[in-house]
Amino acid sequence: MNLLLFRPEELDAHGEVRLVGRRATHLRTILRVDAGRTVRVGLLDGPLGRGEVLSVDRRSVTLRCAFTETAPRRTGDTLILAIPRPRVLGRVLEAATAIGFDTIVLLRTWFVDHGYFHSKVLEDDNVQRHILEGLEQARRTHRPRVLIERRFRPFVEDRLDALVPSSNRFVAHPAETCTFTLHDFRPEPSAPITLAIGPERGFVPFELEFLVARGFEPVSLGPHPLRVETAVPVLHASLDLLRTRPTTTEEVSS
Amino acid sequence: MNLLLFRPEELDAHGEVRLVGRRATHLRTILRVDAGRTVRVGLLDGPLGRGEVLSVDRRSVTLRCAFTETAPRRTGDTLILAIPRPRVLGRVLEAATAIGFDTIVLLRTWFVDHGYFHSKVLEDDNVQRHILEGLEQARRTHRPRVLIERRFRPFVEDRLDALVPSSNRFVAHPAETCTFTLHDFRPEPSAPITLAIGPERGFVPFELEFLVARGFEPVSLGPHPLRVETAVPVLHASLDLLRTRPTTTEEVSS
Repeated sequence: MNLLLFRPEELDAHGEVRLVGRRATHLRTILRVDAGRTVRVGLLDGPLGRGEVLSVDRRSVTLRCAFTETAPRRTGDTLILAIPRPRVLGRVLEAATAIGFDTIVLLRTWFVDHGYFHSKVLEDDNVQRHILEGLEQARRTHRPRVLIERRFRPFVEDRLDALVPSSNRFVAHPAETCTFTLHDFRPEPSAPITLAIGPERGFVPFELEFLVARGFEPVSLGPHPLRVETAVPVLHASLDLLRTRPTTTEEVSS
Repeated sequence: MNLLLFRPEELDAHGEVRLVGRRATHLRTILRVDAGRTVRVGLLDGPLGRGEVLSVDRRSVTLRCAFTETAPRRTGDTLILAIPRPRVLGRVLEAATAIGFDTIVLLRTWFVDHGYFHSKVLEDDNVQRHILEGLEQARRTHRPRVLIERRFRPFVEDRLDALVPSSNRFVAHPAETCTFTLHDFRPEPSAPITLAIGPERGFVPFELEFLVARGFEPVSLGPHPLRVETAVPVLHASLDLLRTRPTTTEEVSS
């Protein structure tokens, strides 16, 4: 936990808050704070700031907070994720939030097990718990919007264009033999990225064609398939680096 | 499991092997193979190939294998990792293996809990189990070498230079305010990368200075700290992309 996050209603008019539970335990047993110590704080979906520890007892910690730093920048990036196994979903939600995705679409595709929809991990409480952990880890305050889409085609056909820009759309596609490299991609500079990642067994050809027809460029990591929790950071880091690449002389003159 | 891996001694003179246990269960219950089906196989530390299913019964699967494809390329990359919490170590070993690190140094640094050394996760059986999972996931065959180093200074002072090249050394360092970006780095093209990643609380100043004095360039991911299992793929992907960057006109003429 690199940031203590609060809902606005938790603080009184002086910015004071008495914590019990998970956050108090972290302050007491991991950070071992004493009165006078300052810690990083943030308002959920709002600014960052500092909290001064006023008192610590065996059950609670009292802080006075001031939120004077601007909120972390939003990326506008969207992750469209075929719903992974329950055990994996929490970790991916946490990593995707930490990396800075603003929207996470949990999508049912052909190879997504029906049973996952009856799993508790898709319940809002569980989703929000993992998102909170991602924010606390990465010192972010803005919760990504999470959409659960149970039908592939109506989502892509009817709702996708209202949700994400038409540029910088990519779909992870395992290609045996790569005829291109990541360097071939020229994401539009400073524009949001939309990254679609299929299930372990991949998108079926119909789904892939459907996405490609809507402007998704297939990107491959080559002959070494990665777990989704590794593929998401690898692909986002690579596309983000390409998106922020300084313009070269060659590109300026062409 | 995207690849079935064998030790050479498991196969008879005709390339035949009768599997029981974990791999047989995977073939029977996940891939649901029948006689005649072909699956990807690999020899540990050797070539890739194809295995034809000869027979399946309730307990075992018999395959005939031919290893005619070249082994996946080795990167020569080294990960120097401050030993993380036991729960995290397995996942990082798996991801680092899948990404393609050839050497993984598990290093005790100042902020590494002493107790981790008495943990079973550092035992060779456990380490090799996670490495095998990383290889099977990423269709690799070469096991990374794993070194456990219990003392920071003797390792960096006496053994590091014999282990890794002097170029392309990077150390992940959380910097609040970034005065540089990843684009400022120019890894030597096609040369191995050495990436050092500290514990959650970071390297202490002495350790960081010690590494910097030995040519490690500090790289930061900016104001959003990531978990080690996310930071490893993000940093490796970014440095790898920079290492393979096509030379621009500007750079050629300068």
